[in-house]
Amino acid sequence: MYDVAAVRRDFPILSRKINGRPLVYLDNGASAQKPQAVINAVTRGYAEEYANVHRGLHTLSNIATEKYEAVRGIVARFLGVADEREIVMTSGSTEGINLVAYGWAAPRLQAGDEIVLSVMEHHANIVPWHFLRERQGVVLKWVDVDMNGDLDPQAVIDAIGPRTKLVALTHMSNVLGTMVDAAAVVDGAHAKGVPVLLDGSQAAVHGPVNLDAIGADFYAITGHKLYGPSGSGAIHIRKERMDEMRPFLGGGDMIREVHKDEVTYADPPMKFEAGTPAIVQQIGLGVALEYLMGLGMENVSAHERGLRDYARERLEGLNWLNLQGRSAGKGAIFSFTLEGGAHPHDISTVLDKKGVAVRAGHHCAGPLMDHLGLSATCRASFGLYNTVEEVDALVDALEFCHELFG
Amino acid sequence: MYDVAAVRRDFPILSRKINGRPLVYLDNGASAQKPQAVINAVTRGYAEEYANVHRGLHTLSNIATEKYEAVRGIVARFLGVADEREIVMTSGSTEGINLVAYGWAAPRLQAGDEIVLSVMEHHANIVPWHFLRERQGVVLKWVDVDMNGDLDPQAVIDAIGPRTKLVALTHMSNVLGTMVDAAAVVDGAHAKGVPVLLDGSQAAVHGPVNLDAIGADFYAITGHKLYGPSGSGAIHIRKERMDEMRPFLGGGDMIREVHKDEVTYADPPMKFEAGTPAIVQQIGLGVALEYLMGLGMENVSAHERGLRDYARERLEGLNWLNLQGRSAGKGAIFSFTLEGGAHPHDISTVLDKKGVAVRAGHHCAGPLMDHLGLSATCRASFGLYNTVEEVDALVDALEFCHELFG
Repeated sequence: MYDVAAVRRDFPILSRKINGRPLVYLDNGASAQKPQAVINAVTRGYAEEYANVHRGLHTLSNIATEKYEAVRGIVARFLGVADEREIVMTSGSTEGINLVAYGWAAPRLQAGDEIVLSVMEHHANIVPWHFLRERQGVVLKWVDVDMNGDLDPQAVIDAIGPRTKLVALTHMSNVLGTMVDAAAVVDGAHAKGVPVLLDGSQAAVHGPVNLDAIGADFYAITGHKLYGPSGSGAIHIRKERMDEMRPFLGGGDMIREVHKDEVTYADPPMKFEAGTPAIVQQIGLGVALEYLMGLGMENVSAHERGLRDYARERLEGLNWLNLQGRSAGKGAIFSFTLEGGAHPHDISTVLDKKGVAVRAGHHCAGPLMDHLGLSATCRASFGLYNTVEEVDALVDALEFCHELFG
Repeated sequence: MYDVAAVRRDFPILSRKINGRPLVYLDNGASAQKPQAVINAVTRGYAEEYANVHRGLHTLSNIATEKYEAVRGIVARFLGVADEREIVMTSGSTEGINLVAYGWAAPRLQAGDEIVLSVMEHHANIVPWHFLRERQGVVLKWVDVDMNGDLDPQAVIDAIGPRTKLVALTHMSNVLGTMVDAAAVVDGAHAKGVPVLLDGSQAAVHGPVNLDAIGADFYAITGHKLYGPSGSGAIHIRKERMDEMRPFLGGGDMIREVHKDEVTYADPPMKFEAGTPAIVQQIGLGVALEYLMGLGMENVSAHERGLRDYARERLEGLNWLNLQGRSAGKGAIFSFTLEGGAHPHDISTVLDKKGVAVRAGHHCAGPLMDHLGLSATCRASFGLYNTVEEVDALVDALEFCHELFG
């Protein structure tokens, strides 16, 4: 039994008030709050066990190294990856996807080669490919979503042509909540010999991910959305793709030998991790993922499906609210505008007066905003600690907004 | 009056024991310990004030954004930079130098163009330039240090030829402790029309840095060595150089507009900061720099000069110890080997039994090790909380080593 009241007690910030009201934190799509276990791990990391990692040989360095390196295995377990050497630690999805763009794609793709994207990508999974378009003439091919915000896997597969070198897709839309049938896309793309990158920034937060079953070539996650510290993250890269990659960031730790006229590189994954890493943050990410696995991602997913169903029913009951994204199997992310033209920024500000934190803007999804014909939406995005009562608080606050602006 | 006992009380880890002995932490060159104020800021950042930054519009996001953005001004003040828009937040020096290599140098340098380096650079200021050598035929020109480990500024200036496009130097050697006369190098290089990058990873930790006086084009610092959180950092880039740079990491926050066929970028410094930043870590870095400015970097520098003089005298008294680096104005960093061939790794392990934490290895300085004819050294590197009693503890532990291995 998923005890959301007990879960909430694990997150100290949830007991604080905003403008005299209990905080209703519905901005999880942007970043999630942190359980006490993660905060404690960070504090302990600095106050009792801190040193730089690797080649330390003294006690503190050995402790830090052991804890840091253990995170690789935790990430592998969390994602259903058999070999932890396929996990590269990053500062988040943005660095992970840039690593693929610079380390794998840039040296391989020629002018006229294509990358297939969906129209609902986050800028983190767009701009690195725009760089390749601007700098070396790579062509971006876009696949639209349907009127419910669903992405047909066959449409993605059909977009793959003889010049297509990569499919780069979100696993879950940060605006619409749409889940992508990643396994179907990967199967179809691999049948055509084309690798697939998945942006797991949202999907990995809200349900179990089994990369052994999905079979993607690259899968990026970001720690701060996974209830872990800011500045933490990882990317899974299949060994075959790692072997094709050149290093990206240059510096300490990723080398074997450095001389004046020669440099040789460490074996993966170290080859792709330069300099002093985000030691304490990654240790905190490990604790966050253990926390999630302790709750059980199936249980998290079931809890959030309940929130989604309840929120969908209540929000659909507001006939002055335009909901974006009606995919049946979507996650608990709701983007909307209000009839009458109140700006999402103003709505967000008014909701905040009631203690309800939502985000407003383009949500780093420019092409999707173009597709929807909007410049901005409000977005309420739920997480594992949210409750049906908080759905009610959101609806109450929206009704207040409607009266104010309507 | 610099009260080192009071300073030590600010650092909780310093009261812990290692192998039953008080911790003598002399691995500051690798990473520094954190004062309670920084740890508290990190804890508060997660437990009370956490949200993603920029465009949030709700209370928590506004608090986090305000605190995060204030760090830019703190870094500018710490480095003597007038315009905080010249500060780019990074995950550390490694990312900062890679930003310059990918964003400024890679699109500008042609095969046969040269970069002038000193032989005592850290890999973070070597490998990004080796990439340019490997990938586009850039030539690396190396300037040696003299027998004391000093770098003659004129030798650097003389190495600048008509094809030289950049001088990339450490401001302070992480192995020898040598300080580089950066202002002289910059003056000479600028007179020849060549920009200068300085790796301030070590120098900024141990004394005041006034970039207005030095006039470098790029100056990278790393937060974890500055008593701040791991995963934090910044680089100063002069506006003229920023204007010449293309973006490096692509993703959210660094764009103005993203469409299917077009992307436009934010103004600097945001243009160079992609994705969710290391929010809480950078806030912690701000607190660390305020802590340092509160002590006064002149006072820190004076305290460490005292440690250097005492340590130099005591270590020079050990006639079975080979000290590397005898620059008169060096910082309190001592690299050494023991006569008789005990491996630095073994020495480090034995010192640890006495509670003394030093690093052993190549210290990410391969070309310097080649120059010294060594594969590894032990390194004792001091920080603002170290004491003369800890110098004695180091010497006692070394004498124990000498008896053991001698």
